[in-house]
Amino acid sequence: MAGRERLLVIGGDAAGMSAASQARRRRGPDELEITVLERGRHASYSACGIPYYVGGLVEDADRLIARTPAEFRDRGIDLRLRHEAVEIDLDGGRVRARDLDGGGERWEPYDQLMVATGAVPARPRLPGADAEGVHGVQVLDDGIAIRRVLERDKPRRAVVVGGGYIGLEMAEALVTRGLEVSLVDAADQPMRTLDPDMGALIADAMRGIGVRLHLGEPVEGFDTAAGRVAAVRTAGRTLPADLVVLGLGVKPETALASAAGIAVGPTGGIVTDRRMRTRSERVWAAGDCVETRHLVSGAPVAIALGTHANKQGRVAGINLGGGYATFPGVVGTAISKICQIEVARTGLNEREAAAAGFEFVTAMVESTTRAGYHPRATTMKTKLLAERRSGRLLGGQIVGEEGAAKRVDGLAIALWNGMTVEEMTGLDLGYAPPFSPVWDPVLITARKAAERVEQDMRTRP
Amino acid sequence: MAGRERLLVIGGDAAGMSAASQARRRRGPDELEITVLERGRHASYSACGIPYYVGGLVEDADRLIARTPAEFRDRGIDLRLRHEAVEIDLDGGRVRARDLDGGGERWEPYDQLMVATGAVPARPRLPGADAEGVHGVQVLDDGIAIRRVLERDKPRRAVVVGGGYIGLEMAEALVTRGLEVSLVDAADQPMRTLDPDMGALIADAMRGIGVRLHLGEPVEGFDTAAGRVAAVRTAGRTLPADLVVLGLGVKPETALASAAGIAVGPTGGIVTDRRMRTRSERVWAAGDCVETRHLVSGAPVAIALGTHANKQGRVAGINLGGGYATFPGVVGTAISKICQIEVARTGLNEREAAAAGFEFVTAMVESTTRAGYHPRATTMKTKLLAERRSGRLLGGQIVGEEGAAKRVDGLAIALWNGMTVEEMTGLDLGYAPPFSPVWDPVLITARKAAERVEQDMRTRP
Repeated sequence: MAGRERLLVIGGDAAGMSAASQARRRRGPDELEITVLERGRHASYSACGIPYYVGGLVEDADRLIARTPAEFRDRGIDLRLRHEAVEIDLDGGRVRARDLDGGGERWEPYDQLMVATGAVPARPRLPGADAEGVHGVQVLDDGIAIRRVLERDKPRRAVVVGGGYIGLEMAEALVTRGLEVSLVDAADQPMRTLDPDMGALIADAMRGIGVRLHLGEPVEGFDTAAGRVAAVRTAGRTLPADLVVLGLGVKPETALASAAGIAVGPTGGIVTDRRMRTRSERVWAAGDCVETRHLVSGAPVAIALGTHANKQGRVAGINLGGGYATFPGVVGTAISKICQIEVARTGLNEREAAAAGFEFVTAMVESTTRAGYHPRATTMKTKLLAERRSGRLLGGQIVGEEGAAKRVDGLAIALWNGMTVEEMTGLDLGYAPPFSPVWDPVLITARKAAERVEQDMRTRP
Repeated sequence: MAGRERLLVIGGDAAGMSAASQARRRRGPDELEITVLERGRHASYSACGIPYYVGGLVEDADRLIARTPAEFRDRGIDLRLRHEAVEIDLDGGRVRARDLDGGGERWEPYDQLMVATGAVPARPRLPGADAEGVHGVQVLDDGIAIRRVLERDKPRRAVVVGGGYIGLEMAEALVTRGLEVSLVDAADQPMRTLDPDMGALIADAMRGIGVRLHLGEPVEGFDTAAGRVAAVRTAGRTLPADLVVLGLGVKPETALASAAGIAVGPTGGIVTDRRMRTRSERVWAAGDCVETRHLVSGAPVAIALGTHANKQGRVAGINLGGGYATFPGVVGTAISKICQIEVARTGLNEREAAAAGFEFVTAMVESTTRAGYHPRATTMKTKLLAERRSGRLLGGQIVGEEGAAKRVDGLAIALWNGMTVEEMTGLDLGYAPPFSPVWDPVLITARKAAERVEQDMRTRP
């Protein structure tokens, strides 16, 4: 088949498979051969679903898999599981691939290369960190391993290291499973992506479900017994543990790309243009391994989130398929649910806004998710940051119960469009008693923020 | 007190009381005297809450009242219930007010006049329409009357005339109360603010809870027996009824304003500028009695909604208090919940878009409110309209279950900012399995709409 191009994709999760699928939609198998190298046992699954599988809300791990390898193969995508790319040869236009099960290596040539190597979990360089019983939560196999341990070994005490989204979701899952759960974090609050005042609400909620929080306590090591983890040590205490879950966040997995000379930016993520093209010829990248533009701060950021990976993969795939699409950047939206508590944030928090050089005012309002007289109304807190003088929205945070957090979408779209809090007070949001008070919490907070901007202008030079 | 101005407000509900409150915040009683004439027995209540009170979800009518007359008086607002304004004398700067209980009339002078006369319900000019047992649902007293009838007379069969939001909500409330409920509408679908394909989903939901729908059947009259309503007649049938509820929509109440020469626009609503000033000197207006600008069509519209009334009243009050605020217009957002079905719309529907001269493409997508593997995921349908060629979002409609409809806020903010569906595909919306599939339904529908725009450009001249 002369003239047929070959697209080689490294990494078969969200970004890689979205790119492969989009490219295939636009160019059939006789125009474009697509091969995907995935070192794991699964492709195209929801990593964000792992805590729900561990907690038992999702019974079967297969439910997290969006498409099976057979489905991809049916669409003319040659997905090779347990095949690891170990070297990229840019000049030669080829990738050395290792067959992890069958053994052996071979060079795979490409016309276009898509790098979707994802992220690598932060793992503390501490004694005992690699002991049996210490689990990461990065790939589906991690979740399967933890659940197998829960069902087989019936551990009683768990320690979660790290109070970010994944740590909190895993802590909840383990509480659901009946374990005694402690959570340790070096920071003074869980969810450092929230301001301390909002993070305190999350800490209260975690304590409310019985999680013991040890904040401001960096982990110093893991005690082991017979090769198995037995306790987590901090400066102040030793926490006995039958099971340890590491939720310390991730960073872009760029070892392969860096070694090949593909440009990596200040965040450690691969640099791409808005079409997801790297600075190397015929090489594209998307997902957790790339950095992108934060549309509020203007700075590059590396945010590992399935939703960005899917969008970026789609954009890369459209471009690889001969179309035109762009990924302009992100505004930093994140959302989570911890038991009954919904939490969301977007834009910049106080620390991030200050770091970006903004001066700002803040407004926090307690309101209700529904009309106050509706029997299912619950309290929610909304916080907004607005730039001094201009009144431009810089960020927002929401903590509440059912129906609260998805309001972050409105804030995200307001940020995307550079709206001021004053302009936001006029927004025509959906109002009916089961959905909102007559003034939606977002609008009330925008009003208060607009007043703060005005006060600030009167009182500061 | 020489130099003290007097603000006279006609109408003590959302718009009037918001204006009074905001004006008071900025100007104390020694600067500004504020008098409110309200012909009803209640002020500042949630008319949108009436169906919930009738259905029993809200036990006590007082719960619908945001602030009592005493609270307003404590803030230096002289709220006079059961006082009706019967004439405005623009040249004399005074209003003739009738004391409906005490009797007598007197002229009340003003320096600034705020007209917040609300809306008048459409009432069919048909035989029997004024019979006992035929109820409107406009003011709180209407809701109290219906609930008293339900509890005292135990009616068995109810007919609701009108399939708009209020008609559907009242039909649900009456089903909840155990009545046999029929709903009659001249139109072929309920909720004419939706397109027929989406309206059909609502019709199915209504039938699902046991409401008998008679669509495309205009009411021709009401049979009475001993002065009481006994049946509703259409061309095709006679529906026996112990209770009839009229939900035929409303129009701006401008009789008083028109008689005084205050300008009324093509929609029948009072014309104001964006500060809510009418074309008559020293006269302001807000709420259901005014018309406003539709920010998508550019045309004037009269939309009776508490949320607009509150916003406009606030804007008028800030300006009356010496500040500066504007109400730029609306994008036509509405939301409702009928049993388990949530429904929302914003912008223009197909009929409205065509009437405004737009050519457009549509996209409808069925997706889920949460990740597909989440046990509480339910199906939702999202429809978007986008302008031909430009791809600008023109409107959106959502029908689904818990968690579906409030997504309309995102569409409303996208409309407000004139976003295209292509740009919307990149939006950074909140994703986590309890809140959304990895591609939010809004994003999937935007993708499909963007593809339609592209196809349309290729295939049409």
